[in-house]
Amino acid sequence: MSSIFTKIINGEIPSYKIAEDDDFFAFLDINPNAKGHTLCIPKKEVDKVMDLDEVTFMGLMAFSRKVGKAIEAAIDCKRVGLTVIGLEVPHVHVHLIPLNEMGDATFQHKISLTEEEFKTIAEKIRSKLSM
Amino acid sequence: MSSIFTKIINGEIPSYKIAEDDDFFAFLDINPNAKGHTLCIPKKEVDKVMDLDEVTFMGLMAFSRKVGKAIEAAIDCKRVGLTVIGLEVPHVHVHLIPLNEMGDATFQHKISLTEEEFKTIAEKIRSKLSM
Repeated sequence: MSSIFTKIINGEIPSYKIAEDDDFFAFLDINPNAKGHTLCIPKKEVDKVMDLDEVTFMGLMAFSRKVGKAIEAAIDCKRVGLTVIGLEVPHVHVHLIPLNEMGDATFQHKISLTEEEFKTIAEKIRSKLSM
Repeated sequence: MSSIFTKIINGEIPSYKIAEDDDFFAFLDINPNAKGHTLCIPKKEVDKVMDLDEVTFMGLMAFSRKVGKAIEAAIDCKRVGLTVIGLEVPHVHVHLIPLNEMGDATFQHKISLTEEEFKTIAEKIRSKLSM
């Protein structure tokens, strides 16, 4: 069975897309820690980050760096953090999170955004992308 | 002034070293979320991860992947997570954290280890390294 993220890549589940290339896909986290919280995933479905083959791991990190720099340019924050946990969805995902304080990085406090806000944030990040 | 991590690299502050090459250094976090919690840092002192030049960023990730795979082989855990936050020490550091539950990833719960335990953990991880 496809993971929820594979369904997002295939468009079976809608998402606020940030970027896509042949191997990777980025979209806004719909349960964000902070405005601009984005997920970057490999199209290949692998559960654990340390099980990714070296080429896919490195490709995912290069892709995440480009998206992260765009988020840092688009969103008012002290810096963008990068986190891979993966205890919930068994499909590797890099969290890119605009950080202003430690609480933004702990996954304990979530924020609510309207559809309009998600759209505006996604557009703003996309406008800063140079893939 | 040198960051605390530069002092660790230079041996001015002692550490439980895991790995080192020309550009990167890995050592146990002395205030760990979980047993085996390790930090990987570039020898070059840069504050924000997204400000690392591409070669250093990619090198740090390749180095962290090797150390992470060794931790996963050495430490009893569901998986190893990878996190870059950096709001406290202005010198990029990748946290590699053996995860068994979400609480291990939130930086809210810390564990205490004896010097002997730190040494044993460091040796065990080093024994699984293939740099």
